[in-house]
Amino acid sequence: MTTDSWVNETLYPAWGQRFRVWHELARVQSAFQDIMIFESETHGRVMLLDGVVQITEGDEFVYQEMITHPPLLAHGAAERVLIIGAGDGGVLKRVLQHRNVTRAVMVEIDGEVIRLAKQFLPGIGGTAWTDPRAEVIVGDGIDYVQRAPDAAFDVLIVDSTDPIGVGEALFTDDFYANAARILAPGGLIVNQCGVPFMQADELGDTSLRRAKFFPHVGAYVAAVPTYVGGFMTLGFAAKVPGLDAVPVATIRARAEAAGMLGTTRYWTPEVHWSAFQLPPYIARHLPPRG
Amino acid sequence: MTTDSWVNETLYPAWGQRFRVWHELARVQSAFQDIMIFESETHGRVMLLDGVVQITEGDEFVYQEMITHPPLLAHGAAERVLIIGAGDGGVLKRVLQHRNVTRAVMVEIDGEVIRLAKQFLPGIGGTAWTDPRAEVIVGDGIDYVQRAPDAAFDVLIVDSTDPIGVGEALFTDDFYANAARILAPGGLIVNQCGVPFMQADELGDTSLRRAKFFPHVGAYVAAVPTYVGGFMTLGFAAKVPGLDAVPVATIRARAEAAGMLGTTRYWTPEVHWSAFQLPPYIARHLPPRG
Repeated sequence: MTTDSWVNETLYPAWGQRFRVWHELARVQSAFQDIMIFESETHGRVMLLDGVVQITEGDEFVYQEMITHPPLLAHGAAERVLIIGAGDGGVLKRVLQHRNVTRAVMVEIDGEVIRLAKQFLPGIGGTAWTDPRAEVIVGDGIDYVQRAPDAAFDVLIVDSTDPIGVGEALFTDDFYANAARILAPGGLIVNQCGVPFMQADELGDTSLRRAKFFPHVGAYVAAVPTYVGGFMTLGFAAKVPGLDAVPVATIRARAEAAGMLGTTRYWTPEVHWSAFQLPPYIARHLPPRG
Repeated sequence: MTTDSWVNETLYPAWGQRFRVWHELARVQSAFQDIMIFESETHGRVMLLDGVVQITEGDEFVYQEMITHPPLLAHGAAERVLIIGAGDGGVLKRVLQHRNVTRAVMVEIDGEVIRLAKQFLPGIGGTAWTDPRAEVIVGDGIDYVQRAPDAAFDVLIVDSTDPIGVGEALFTDDFYANAARILAPGGLIVNQCGVPFMQADELGDTSLRRAKFFPHVGAYVAAVPTYVGGFMTLGFAAKVPGLDAVPVATIRARAEAAGMLGTTRYWTPEVHWSAFQLPPYIARHLPPRG
């Protein structure tokens, strides 16, 4: 609460980032995790879950754009989108920018994250919370995918924490089996896979798991300023081949049809294609190309 | 010197990275700067100049590959390369991987950086220090470019610190004027331009300055794990157009001819092309495309 205090991220025990804090806005122990929101000097408001940076107002656009636009545009005709996690509402907002999306279901396990995001980070979700195409459920994403009907969604976005703590069950065989079942033909799932320079096992392990249930598995990258350690990876798994190599011109045409071309600060059709070009130090953690 | 001490990078006053230190290896106040080398728990050995991380054993490959291979391969026939700074020897090593390079001159102002790098980071420069094509000069890069003959080099790589302290004079009109003079027709200069999410002015200001002396100015990006804050930019300025858009197949053929294809951990022909695709939040700091 002082004006010269620092918050150290605790994701890695011996390296990490720190922020000077203007003032703390919220500190809540929910049923699931420790939630902290503070006003930083450099990045606007920052939300941490269990000591790990989830989002800052300054750079949220990078992560939100890159976990949303590549899967929707690689698919090309996504109408029904399921989002698991993403309680701040930023992914929901980006999904709804695609005018061809008819239904976006968001399942966030921790209602406190939603409540605090609406109160302290209202710009991140914006008007998405009240969009008639959106259905926001406070509940267990694992449970939701178990109960959802077959082929109910075109794209599934898993915006979870790392596979420790509350996010762990989103990286299991059972989860991916259900994900494959509830995705329609042509569908794909995307989930955040950490920063491979620091967490290579996360990408490697979850890629192998996805490969059990999907014939086409890969990853793409984004340079998120506050997910420190170089590129973060977004793992994808698809029912059809080629979604990682859609030509730039096709992506551009789809983005124009979706009505979201020109709305972005990180994503472009060229950045989209480029994100799938993995440096060898990352590519070696993926299973042989399917 | 204790086993539970931390080093906080001081580049930005209110945000940054910190490393837990196994032990300090060297701490020298040279005629130019404060040089510190320590053994980290996470990134191998780390070198700081005036409190700013310059290089770590763990991730040096990203920066060294990306400041070297794109300019040499975009040029396509680079034989004579001038390196300013880069006292650790890592850029020199990458330049000499190109078998068509006949002469690589490296001018580092601080002999203490070279001495300490050879002693504590010997793997970074490797055998480059004794390569017969290499000429290592301890001296002032500004002075060198003033005295060098016209059209003496094909590529000029400026691996300086940020434009504060000792690196400042490498970002002046006078420096770029001489750079243009000593580059042969078809030549280009590359220099590091910081992390635009945190230091956007650095890219904007130096791009405008380069544009006074070169007709074709731009930038490309790399995600360097310990240059925290998202993409860093490498600014380039060229005498001929199109060097930022050489097709992937051409780059691959040149890399094969140069004998360095398959030696890299970050760079590939596809990553090369992709690096020039700038996110809008970065592109807007560049002058209109020339």
